[in-house]
Amino acid sequence: MIFYYALKTVSVALHITLEEVGADYKERPIDFGNAEQRSETYLGINPKGRVPALATEGGILTETPAILLYLAQRFPESGMAPLNDPFALAKLQEFNAYLCATVHVAHAHRVRGARWVDDESAIKAMQAKVPQTMGECFGLLEAEMFRGPWVMGGQYTICDPYLFTISNWLEGDGVDPDEFPGIAAHNRRMRERPAVARVAAIHGV
Amino acid sequence: MIFYYALKTVSVALHITLEEVGADYKERPIDFGNAEQRSETYLGINPKGRVPALATEGGILTETPAILLYLAQRFPESGMAPLNDPFALAKLQEFNAYLCATVHVAHAHRVRGARWVDDESAIKAMQAKVPQTMGECFGLLEAEMFRGPWVMGGQYTICDPYLFTISNWLEGDGVDPDEFPGIAAHNRRMRERPAVARVAAIHGV
Repeated sequence: MIFYYALKTVSVALHITLEEVGADYKERPIDFGNAEQRSETYLGINPKGRVPALATEGGILTETPAILLYLAQRFPESGMAPLNDPFALAKLQEFNAYLCATVHVAHAHRVRGARWVDDESAIKAMQAKVPQTMGECFGLLEAEMFRGPWVMGGQYTICDPYLFTISNWLEGDGVDPDEFPGIAAHNRRMRERPAVARVAAIHGV
Repeated sequence: MIFYYALKTVSVALHITLEEVGADYKERPIDFGNAEQRSETYLGINPKGRVPALATEGGILTETPAILLYLAQRFPESGMAPLNDPFALAKLQEFNAYLCATVHVAHAHRVRGARWVDDESAIKAMQAKVPQTMGECFGLLEAEMFRGPWVMGGQYTICDPYLFTISNWLEGDGVDPDEFPGIAAHNRRMRERPAVARVAAIHGV
């Protein structure tokens, strides 16, 4: 497998999971500083021009929640998803869908506002609201969704690297991570895992 | 099961799927006109204040891609997801994640801009870009992701009701659906299915 990623992006979640499941893969960093994600070569791999992407023997996969579940299913001995329990799997997917479509999107209004508006003053208006929206998202995650010690309770799953990755964005988004003590403790707990420590060092997160 | 939904929203995708798999469920419409999604009763069901939600014997589920896969797994005889083929399942999930986190989000900038900005002129700036972003999303869906005759090719899956639901929003978003002939034909093909016709009549879509 070939793992296409960019430093400090949501790719971190997949990078950790590749390490956790013991996958055999090559790393291929994409240089966002030089807009390599928009190069003809990379658009041939992922026409969306985004990371992460994973080249497998069957073809290329994109979208973080999809690739995370793929790895859990390809490496069932990792126990990273309750594959045969429809309700438990749906709760896991519900968590990841919320991160993907609501929390990551809230964050993106600070750093990728030009996706949704052309006007410079509107981009600033978006950025101004990010501390509020990210704070509300993490308030809900902490109060209603995070179980502890891991996201889904006693079992470490693909939700954990994903939450870890996004919770590292809070400070940059103007939110104090210690407002959410359960998730802040989860972040520290994650860093004690060897796979997480290796990947965090690569990304500088 | 109890299905909580609002007319013409993304709930349509789940409503069709409940019919397709032959689930035994009760309908519970939520009145967005009276902000019932913000009522104490409904927030007790879904603290996000959104639809759809599905009450099952195991508990409540939210997030469209999560519930869709749950139904496919609960009703495996429907064949609505390639549950035991990790790569094929990941391609299906990739499609649904793109609808959830990119396409639905692009659309929401026309109708729910206050999620991301407070300023009225910024909301207008967001709305102005929606025809472009939705057009680009559907250009990519048509060129790179939609296989035909169904989304994933020969097999009708949980991707089909989801694409149908969102493609019905194009005209309101200022995009001509006929710019995407494969997806426009898919929309007509969907309407020939009895389950789709029943649900489309309920929602007036």
